[in-house]
Amino acid sequence: MPDKPAPDASRRSEKSRRAIYAAALALVAETGYPKTTIESIAARAGVGKQTIYRWWTSKADVLMEAFLDLGEQAAARQGDGQPYGIPDTGDLAADLKAVLRATVDELFDPAFEAPARALAAEGVVNEQLGRQFVAKLLQPQLELYVRRLRSAQDAGAVRPDVDPRIALEFFVSPLAQRWLQRTAPISYEYTDTLVDYALYGLAPR
Amino acid sequence: MPDKPAPDASRRSEKSRRAIYAAALALVAETGYPKTTIESIAARAGVGKQTIYRWWTSKADVLMEAFLDLGEQAAARQGDGQPYGIPDTGDLAADLKAVLRATVDELFDPAFEAPARALAAEGVVNEQLGRQFVAKLLQPQLELYVRRLRSAQDAGAVRPDVDPRIALEFFVSPLAQRWLQRTAPISYEYTDTLVDYALYGLAPR
Repeated sequence: MPDKPAPDASRRSEKSRRAIYAAALALVAETGYPKTTIESIAARAGVGKQTIYRWWTSKADVLMEAFLDLGEQAAARQGDGQPYGIPDTGDLAADLKAVLRATVDELFDPAFEAPARALAAEGVVNEQLGRQFVAKLLQPQLELYVRRLRSAQDAGAVRPDVDPRIALEFFVSPLAQRWLQRTAPISYEYTDTLVDYALYGLAPR
Repeated sequence: MPDKPAPDASRRSEKSRRAIYAAALALVAETGYPKTTIESIAARAGVGKQTIYRWWTSKADVLMEAFLDLGEQAAARQGDGQPYGIPDTGDLAADLKAVLRATVDELFDPAFEAPARALAAEGVVNEQLGRQFVAKLLQPQLELYVRRLRSAQDAGAVRPDVDPRIALEFFVSPLAQRWLQRTAPISYEYTDTLVDYALYGLAPR
């Protein structure tokens, strides 16, 4: 973007940017990642191809930013300004249940589901894209779990010898697999149960 | 297949069947599910299209059986004749660690990885195929975990109020997500840790 855009140009840019994001997300949902091209995004958004190349270097770039923007918009709608935030009320089980319930809602948000599936599918077979999306989109969310679990360790709610990077997978991975592979239904009751089992273990106490 | 094949016909059939499985798995790995066709499988296997239609109704069918056969061959190589079996020695942690270590080996078996990724990716975006593969390929494996966890409940090693269908996801889903999405490295040490965390929980005892 130019260093100091005139106010009108900036508004025009913002409008184009939104149109490009919407076009990219719609196309990847409808035709899959391989068939989505900079050309088809430009045509759908009603902008010139050069407009896209001015701001992004590849379709992966456009889609990544479109996705980040989707998350920011969802957070803005919730009004907390904290995309994917995990509360820290001191009650670890309650905080994890709350964030997982919000994740369930997001996974079934129609604006999110189809493009998220298209990108996740491509990431499974396309290692470079997969790693890029994990680094930019998934990793920041996992970091929030690491931080929340570390805080729980400081408070004595999680054993000090537990590796938070592994432990977070008990909350994140079962839900991810049910969603990605449709192995079983998803509900709040289910994610609540994950939290209880993970914190207190399966063996008798 | 004919009711009573002559020995020669049966040998020929067996050879064709193997060639078709190998062609189907190679093609889906190389070109993805959408571009794999009955025609391209037939051409690669060096058989007529009608030979395939005699035994299977669709490419999904061929691939599913090719995959089941891959599992049986892997089990035969291991010599235990038990595909995806979970031992029941009475030591739940040791049994789960053993089956997860075997799963790690399988996930990185070059014969398995590329076609498995291609099919998993397609299942993410193609609900019908995804559900078919879960029902035929994944569900029987999950059932083994349910059975092993029920046996552990009978033996007092797992709390009686735990739902084995949910609990098994602590062993299966983190590994599945690391493999599908390449969120972090996979090792025996990692899967061993999953077992310990899941059985004893994250909270202090």
